Amino acid sequence: MEYLEKLGGQAAAVKQELQRLATKQKNQALIRIAGALVDRQEQILTANCRDYEIAQTGGMARGLLDRLKLTPERIEAMAEGLRQIAGLPDPVGEVMESIDRPNGLHIQKIRVPMGVIGIIYEARPNVTADAFGLCFKTGNAVILKGGRDAFYSNQAIVRVIRETLGELGICADAIQLIEQNDRAVTTAFMQMKQYVDLLIPRGGAGLINAVVANSTIPVIETGTGNCHIYVDEDADLSQAIPVIINAKTQRIGVCNACESLLIHKKIADRFLPELGRALQERHVEIRGDQTVMDKIPGSLQATEEDYGTEYLDYIVSMKTVSSVEEAIAHINRYNTGHSDAILTENEAHMEQFFQGVDSACVYANASTRFTDGFEFGFGAEIGISTQKLHARGPMGLKELTTYKYIIKGNGQIRP
Amino acid sequence: MEYLEKLGGQAAAVKQELQRLATKQKNQALIRIAGALVDRQEQILTANCRDYEIAQTGGMARGLLDRLKLTPERIEAMAEGLRQIAGLPDPVGEVMESIDRPNGLHIQKIRVPMGVIGIIYEARPNVTADAFGLCFKTGNAVILKGGRDAFYSNQAIVRVIRETLGELGICADAIQLIEQNDRAVTTAFMQMKQYVDLLIPRGGAGLINAVVANSTIPVIETGTGNCHIYVDEDADLSQAIPVIINAKTQRIGVCNACESLLIHKKIADRFLPELGRALQERHVEIRGDQTVMDKIPGSLQATEEDYGTEYLDYIVSMKTVSSVEEAIAHINRYNTGHSDAILTENEAHMEQFFQGVDSACVYANASTRFTDGFEFGFGAEIGISTQKLHARGPMGLKELTTYKYIIKGNGQIRP
Repeated sequence: MEYLEKLGGQAAAVKQELQRLATKQKNQALIRIAGALVDRQEQILTANCRDYEIAQTGGMARGLLDRLKLTPERIEAMAEGLRQIAGLPDPVGEVMESIDRPNGLHIQKIRVPMGVIGIIYEARPNVTADAFGLCFKTGNAVILKGGRDAFYSNQAIVRVIRETLGELGICADAIQLIEQNDRAVTTAFMQMKQYVDLLIPRGGAGLINAVVANSTIPVIETGTGNCHIYVDEDADLSQAIPVIINAKTQRIGVCNACESLLIHKKIADRFLPELGRALQERHVEIRGDQTVMDKIPGSLQATEEDYGTEYLDYIVSMKTVSSVEEAIAHINRYNTGHSDAILTENEAHMEQFFQGVDSACVYANASTRFTDGFEFGFGAEIGISTQKLHARGPMGLKELTTYKYIIKGNGQIRP
Repeated sequence: MEYLEKLGGQAAAVKQELQRLATKQKNQALIRIAGALVDRQEQILTANCRDYEIAQTGGMARGLLDRLKLTPERIEAMAEGLRQIAGLPDPVGEVMESIDRPNGLHIQKIRVPMGVIGIIYEARPNVTADAFGLCFKTGNAVILKGGRDAFYSNQAIVRVIRETLGELGICADAIQLIEQNDRAVTTAFMQMKQYVDLLIPRGGAGLINAVVANSTIPVIETGTGNCHIYVDEDADLSQAIPVIINAKTQRIGVCNACESLLIHKKIADRFLPELGRALQERHVEIRGDQTVMDKIPGSLQATEEDYGTEYLDYIVSMKTVSSVEEAIAHINRYNTGHSDAILTENEAHMEQFFQGVDSACVYANASTRFTDGFEFGFGAEIGISTQKLHARGPMGLKELTTYKYIIKGNGQIRP
């Protein structure tokens, strides 16, 4: 794969330059690039039209077409994203620890860029600018492999960024796009361990599993969310319906949307009919166990598979449970380690749930929809990590860095 | 693989119990186990004899036989390791961040155990107790796959630990040993992503590469060290020889031993003959470039392969360079991201080296042999990470934990 070797070598060659860029220089570049994206939007929109027409002719589903589509407003949002990243603190260079050893060695733990980050994503052209912004701000070179359906859009966006970097005297190879839409190339990219320090797949479960199975580069898994809400016997039921409706329906296609509800058996009689009506009014299909079917007319039988499914749709699975322990066990069996909530006024149940549920974000009495870099106050995010290594939950700028130890001595040897 | 499924399920079942153990309980258990290892050393030594005899008959190399061998002193050292772990602070439960959001959400970032850690290692029975101690202290269940040549030793050590845990009323499945010595079982173990949260290979490059290539579980690579020392034109040459001799010969078989020397051309005339004599007096074979061969009688020609080799032996590669930039470029090409040093009195060169060398530990004017959890003041370590994700350099207790976000609300929904 000569082509990939070339990209890898170019990314490696630009690492040191990027690492040395001053924060001010990086911020100015991000703002200039934001301006250039808006100024040159005609080029981007033309390229996007081309992608859109091909996708439409090819019969792409409506939801995906919507994610692919760019408009002047969406380009402005991309630019605004870059301006916001420019406004965030630069984590690079932070002295995380400083240790003086009895033998006179002075050790510093310093935050540094990862080096080269690879991002594999689907046909969402906004990710192109967004991923670049986060990687660039943290001093990383980025190699992007976008979905083939957004190929021309990505090419146009990357061209604007590269040309603007060039005008600023910064090496354009800070961002590179893999322009070969061949699955074998993508697989080979996942094994470029000698050049790429971190690989982040952004997309659905299929994409993520393929990357995990094939990559030799360390991967951070992001974004699959089979999120639960457990309504405890001691829940404030007046809060429960607004929270559930928000978590399920405020935006159905996102990873922090609720996909499954657990209801304590003791409140089934009082709560299920009302909950069923509220969901059905919003056109949510309910798939539940026998108790659920008995209490909610029009609900369907849930299968085992339902409990493990991230619908990203107007569907919710529902199950009645006899205790907080049973709720925790069910969640740990079926969830994806993303976000799960308990609704309860009982402090002991809340603590049990906080400790027992093995997820990045565990909520009490709030919608799961808050799992998001902005909502946590971190600013922009590269994704929501559902693994435990390195980063968990919303990944902001810090999570795109690593550290090194710098040790100064005056001739110390180990006895 | 029913056998592995069973171990995985048992480890998962004990996770919550381990997570809830109080620090005091964990420390007492570690001390009790330390005592039991010493008290029951006959069983362990008998099992070890059996391994040793089989290995000796099978023609195992002397260095490996030495690593396999247990003695009363070595068992006491294992016990002392556990007592030291008992004395270290418990990282679990630490509130790492606390965030109050304008909407009233209260977010806490809490340090928690990883869950289940898998460790694959070679025929070094001391790793068995050591790995258990670190995982147990951090509230993790551990599944061990030790080298088949240490099978009976590992079995005996694990039995003592499990029985002592049982006596203390702690579930013995906190430690499990894979007792099937079949490569297919080991490969299947690397893909038990549903049960194992982190996989740490401890051993040589072959083992590590096999794990990286086959694992779907997140891996931390440890322990391969092609460590360099660069002697700058502005080095204090009176310091240089003791530091180099220490880094190369104090202990040859360890990952932080020096394997390659870079010497500035300007000091070649003055320094190389003396350096050559010092190394040769200690029976170190020198493989160098033309300048090295000209200045050091008895030195051999180095190949490209030499520069990429971690010898773990009385051999060193050597190259002359024209600048600190050339030294940095050479190191970044051939090193393993472990430990590299510059010897110089020139602050600008030192800073350039600190920034430019892409390794976990970058030294000025000290031996690379200090890359070690104890030497850094972290206490016991599970290994030296040579990757950038999650942990870099010496990995102590904190590096065996992850975090979760706990979010308390009172009915917040996302607008």
